[in-house]
Amino acid sequence: MKVQGRAYRTIRRHDDGHRVCVIDQTQLPHRFVTRELASLDEVAHAIKTMIVRGAPLIGATAAYGVAIAMAGDASDGNLASACEQLIATRPTAVNLRWAVGELRARLASLPASERRDAAYARADELCEEDVELCRRIGLHGLEEIKRLAGTKAVTPIQVLTHCNAGWLATVDWGTALAPIYHAHDAGLDIHVWVDETRPRNQGASLTAWELASHGVPHTVIVDNAGGHLMQRGLVDLCIVGSDRTTRRGDVCNKIGTYLKALAARDNGVPFYVAVPYPSIDWALGDGMAIPIEERPASEVSRMTGTTEAGELVSVDIVAPGSPAANPAFDVTPARLVTALITERGVCAASEAGLVELYPEREIPA
Amino acid sequence: MKVQGRAYRTIRRHDDGHRVCVIDQTQLPHRFVTRELASLDEVAHAIKTMIVRGAPLIGATAAYGVAIAMAGDASDGNLASACEQLIATRPTAVNLRWAVGELRARLASLPASERRDAAYARADELCEEDVELCRRIGLHGLEEIKRLAGTKAVTPIQVLTHCNAGWLATVDWGTALAPIYHAHDAGLDIHVWVDETRPRNQGASLTAWELASHGVPHTVIVDNAGGHLMQRGLVDLCIVGSDRTTRRGDVCNKIGTYLKALAARDNGVPFYVAVPYPSIDWALGDGMAIPIEERPASEVSRMTGTTEAGELVSVDIVAPGSPAANPAFDVTPARLVTALITERGVCAASEAGLVELYPEREIPA
Repeated sequence: MKVQGRAYRTIRRHDDGHRVCVIDQTQLPHRFVTRELASLDEVAHAIKTMIVRGAPLIGATAAYGVAIAMAGDASDGNLASACEQLIATRPTAVNLRWAVGELRARLASLPASERRDAAYARADELCEEDVELCRRIGLHGLEEIKRLAGTKAVTPIQVLTHCNAGWLATVDWGTALAPIYHAHDAGLDIHVWVDETRPRNQGASLTAWELASHGVPHTVIVDNAGGHLMQRGLVDLCIVGSDRTTRRGDVCNKIGTYLKALAARDNGVPFYVAVPYPSIDWALGDGMAIPIEERPASEVSRMTGTTEAGELVSVDIVAPGSPAANPAFDVTPARLVTALITERGVCAASEAGLVELYPEREIPA
Repeated sequence: MKVQGRAYRTIRRHDDGHRVCVIDQTQLPHRFVTRELASLDEVAHAIKTMIVRGAPLIGATAAYGVAIAMAGDASDGNLASACEQLIATRPTAVNLRWAVGELRARLASLPASERRDAAYARADELCEEDVELCRRIGLHGLEEIKRLAGTKAVTPIQVLTHCNAGWLATVDWGTALAPIYHAHDAGLDIHVWVDETRPRNQGASLTAWELASHGVPHTVIVDNAGGHLMQRGLVDLCIVGSDRTTRRGDVCNKIGTYLKALAARDNGVPFYVAVPYPSIDWALGDGMAIPIEERPASEVSRMTGTTEAGELVSVDIVAPGSPAANPAFDVTPARLVTALITERGVCAASEAGLVELYPEREIPA
């Protein structure tokens, strides 16, 4: 998508063919800064500290991490340890494990001398594939939006989203925001309620920034406000992303998603989850079994922003000495999800629904 | 309650008998600063800008506002206009209207020469009464906590609260926190999950500060986290305050309360609302008819905190140019409320439940 008129992706190979360039998402919306990642440690650090974030982008970045590791030492031992180091950076999103597994599977049978080039080539492929998955999710989601818009007498059609599942969370387009970009580009009158998404404020910082950059009308709200807006009929549908969706359709996404799904159910608002196939965990049925990352308390107690003088400053916002807890994700049970939007189409959030779209995944009786 | 070992109330008359002294709650938890309010305009400004906040404390402050106005001009005209000015400061909490109404009723039939002293005396009475209401709510709530604790094999008993309904929101004790203070003082092993409560962070700033000052174990969480904690069995009960409770038991409280009530219902967690009688609106049945205050967008987009150097700084945290909306309250329907805790005891959140405790309020058939 575009930044000040120029088309950008969140990740690309440097002209030297070796390093990768990413947008430093910890600096947004205050600064638009790109960074180069030149070593496996730099890649792991970038994922861990959320310089790059969003399940699909984490996967893509990790794929390049394997490639960078292979450029240094393409031995079996280094392949194994690089993969382990990358997988350990974030425990919840399944795309990370999936992307690293894709690279490992491709490289394992190759001689060491061919691994570097094969790894970069496969990482490039995963990126291209991610863009196409997101574009298709957007088109399928657009049909849902059009259908709901058709039932409405008054515009705009109002969408609520949580966290950032936009192009910044992927290579391009986004998952949850792809249908919104398609709708906006198709000329539909669409408005987005952007959940701030504490504690890291991906909504206020990233979703608002991307929607503004693309010219999509939106309003930032605190995470507390969505239920009230739904009660008052001001939300026509919710769309969120997913860090891991189980075979039965349970959705693990940014903390707070579950609360919005409850409010949507209580008010008859359709609740959609945009799910590219690499974020489906076919091995898992029950979402409550997904490991939930506990992140540093400082993400709750400190906040970074811009002063009137334009200086970037971090401030303490919690009563001194009070401890804070910071679980990063929650699980929305399938029963609260109206439908999943995948690159293959829209389906019920259930094993039957998913298997209908992915028949190759059917588990033999 | 105590601040650094010294007993404090949120509001008291100055030694000159005329001005009132309040804690500037916009400065907490960063600074403990008291302010003197000497004119009606200063009182109205303090309520509007949330130097004082919390439904019961707003009522008490407004009562002194009427008294201060009478000290200057005790005419019928000034009584009427002072009452109007005060009621207009905040639209949602009913205690404000109730307290101003109490003063007006007391003063209207008195000669102007007696109004000033009568107003101060009545305001003093309302403060004393508020302390006693809260103390009793605490004792009734304590019985509920003890009962729930009795069903638990493992301590601590875990309470989740939203916003600040502690002593800072009242004259002393608090509403939702009064049972917690009583339980802690009685030696129960109790731990409080404190919702940050965006956008004004009354949980992280005020509730955490008061609980820490009193030595009650607690942990600050973002507003998004409560549903997850309930799913994992880490919350035994929720207690919140109320800015206005209708005759039928609908509860209007700080934005986000409704989302926690939904999560409590979905997880079988009891959801209590602490309600002193002045916050009951007997004239209203349907909570959706309560006017919801829309506050400035800057409360969402700017955040104040302390730098490492100890400086108090405000920073912009939303993408530049993105608009924000800021509804301050939401309505939790009675069906989601396990029980109301009033100064007269615990009752169902329904007209029948309330009338049982307040038989004088029964509406003749």
